[in-house]
Amino acid sequence: MKTAVFKKAGFVTVEETAKPTIQADDDVIIKVIRTCVCGSDLWAYRGLQTHNPELINDGHEALGIVEETGSAITTVKKGDFVIAPFTHGCGHCEACLAGYDGVCLNHKQNFSANAQAEYMRFSHGQWALVKVPGKPEDYTEDMIASLLTLADVMATGYHAARTANVQPGDTALVIGDGAVGLCGVISAKLRGAKQIILMSHHEDRAALGKDFGATEIVSERDDAAIEHVMQLTNNAGADAVLECVGAEQSTHQAIVCARPGAKIGRVGLPHGSSMDPAETFYRNVQLTGGPAPVTTYDKQKLLKAVLDGQINPGRVFTKSYSLDEINQAYQDMANRKTIKALIKMY
Amino acid sequence: MKTAVFKKAGFVTVEETAKPTIQADDDVIIKVIRTCVCGSDLWAYRGLQTHNPELINDGHEALGIVEETGSAITTVKKGDFVIAPFTHGCGHCEACLAGYDGVCLNHKQNFSANAQAEYMRFSHGQWALVKVPGKPEDYTEDMIASLLTLADVMATGYHAARTANVQPGDTALVIGDGAVGLCGVISAKLRGAKQIILMSHHEDRAALGKDFGATEIVSERDDAAIEHVMQLTNNAGADAVLECVGAEQSTHQAIVCARPGAKIGRVGLPHGSSMDPAETFYRNVQLTGGPAPVTTYDKQKLLKAVLDGQINPGRVFTKSYSLDEINQAYQDMANRKTIKALIKMY
Repeated sequence: MKTAVFKKAGFVTVEETAKPTIQADDDVIIKVIRTCVCGSDLWAYRGLQTHNPELINDGHEALGIVEETGSAITTVKKGDFVIAPFTHGCGHCEACLAGYDGVCLNHKQNFSANAQAEYMRFSHGQWALVKVPGKPEDYTEDMIASLLTLADVMATGYHAARTANVQPGDTALVIGDGAVGLCGVISAKLRGAKQIILMSHHEDRAALGKDFGATEIVSERDDAAIEHVMQLTNNAGADAVLECVGAEQSTHQAIVCARPGAKIGRVGLPHGSSMDPAETFYRNVQLTGGPAPVTTYDKQKLLKAVLDGQINPGRVFTKSYSLDEINQAYQDMANRKTIKALIKMY
Repeated sequence: MKTAVFKKAGFVTVEETAKPTIQADDDVIIKVIRTCVCGSDLWAYRGLQTHNPELINDGHEALGIVEETGSAITTVKKGDFVIAPFTHGCGHCEACLAGYDGVCLNHKQNFSANAQAEYMRFSHGQWALVKVPGKPEDYTEDMIASLLTLADVMATGYHAARTANVQPGDTALVIGDGAVGLCGVISAKLRGAKQIILMSHHEDRAALGKDFGATEIVSERDDAAIEHVMQLTNNAGADAVLECVGAEQSTHQAIVCARPGAKIGRVGLPHGSSMDPAETFYRNVQLTGGPAPVTTYDKQKLLKAVLDGQINPGRVFTKSYSLDEINQAYQDMANRKTIKALIKMY
């Protein structure tokens, strides 16, 4: 089969490899129909972080058809149309039961990998996979794109909004205008925020953010951005902050722009040396978030919201590529020529 | 009047100074009847932190009688019996309205000082002071001691439990067996925790903790303590963690002992160089807490709980001193000969 292979920073290519096989009784082999590139994949692609040498590629989001199941799998069968979340909860440990299957206590290997390929091995598939009714051909291309966001970015944006505890009538601040930040805007609106401030430096992303429900765009950087947010919030700060970047500067902005007692929902993978433990303390700011419980959110509400047409997060895919064009897809995302790159397998 | 004077690490003495006077129209002069020494005062006394040279003494907890009021004060009058919280909220900014008057947006000088004296100047007294019905002589000595805890430690312990979101049936872990930690135990019980694990290395404190509602004592230190907590929680970690120390090691223990998705209510003043921003992230642990909204908690529920005899936090005062004995009071607390030192003015 064809698979994307991470060669070095700035270069991902396509090679022929063996099709993955069942290795554990709760494995599921999935024939991938759509995958994509994630903002988190760009850290290694840009050379800002070492690529995990155990992975062929960093892909962790897919839609597909069940090809083969391990002996312990009873929830899906060959031919089923599924969302393959990037998280792999067991569904019954204390973490999963509390709604945090992104950090399942039973599964040490809880994240997907090697999804940028014709087939992927999905470990711990019994509870984590999310079935989609019908067949791919029953859906429009737009709906398929929205379903693909349920493997990660839509659920991750929702996690930012939920852990930031966005309530009806709130002022929500979204830091980050990538696919996750834009899905954070959708989520803040879904939870009833009245004012949604999006920090965005790019016209195309700001425009999509406005379509999704952002009421104000803060396009300044650094301290000027903080000042603008404070102006927009009567100098009190936001009731809820969605931190969708993970950098040191964005985390600092999140803390400073939070109203005393407000929650910051962090979903950007943390990059940065250290935090001052007193910075949140003396303002009673609450620092929350982490890997999203994708399966829980999809099953509870997000799959239905997509199928009902209530939300259309697939719009974050602004360009589509074949698997052979994978390096171009990475490059266009790295150069911000596309917000998120969709890989169409066939 | 007599006042405690911080001279240097390890030495606090008593000197004659001028009685404080009204300096702002929302000042209140209080004749102190009881004050005390706080665990946070010991950082400077032990030489672990510089003493703020602008303060005569670090005292910030008092019970007293209103002696004089500024022209803007309408809520209390000369002769009223009051709790003087260590926090000074305005009661109407976004932070105070959200229940975080410990970090009021309107009052830059939001904390008490110089309370270890015959009289104290309480700034911003209009909303922050808490009236107690009747006169001091209407109450038993035990009840007076419990009322004094409402100036800080009982409200601070409650803040740990509230920000850690202790729910009925929860397993709560309390880190710290000082007065605040012990009030955290009272608070976890008040909020319905079923299992209350107290980390304590001292028999007297552990015994009082058990009286207050602790179901288990973890007396080990460092990693052994973590191991014991994990054993007691089915290896899942606690549903809620009350961090009542503020040191680097105790913060690390709090994070590691929290169930994925659990909240840590931090109320110990943070001491320690830095935190890894990824440590809480990859377990979805929520880091909350800060200076307690003392006035809100007292008015909402804690004063009533004390007056009804539902809680008796005054038991944390295991020894009483005159103001002249202030250095002994500090020393006994520093040497853990008393859990919390009460200063009886007359």
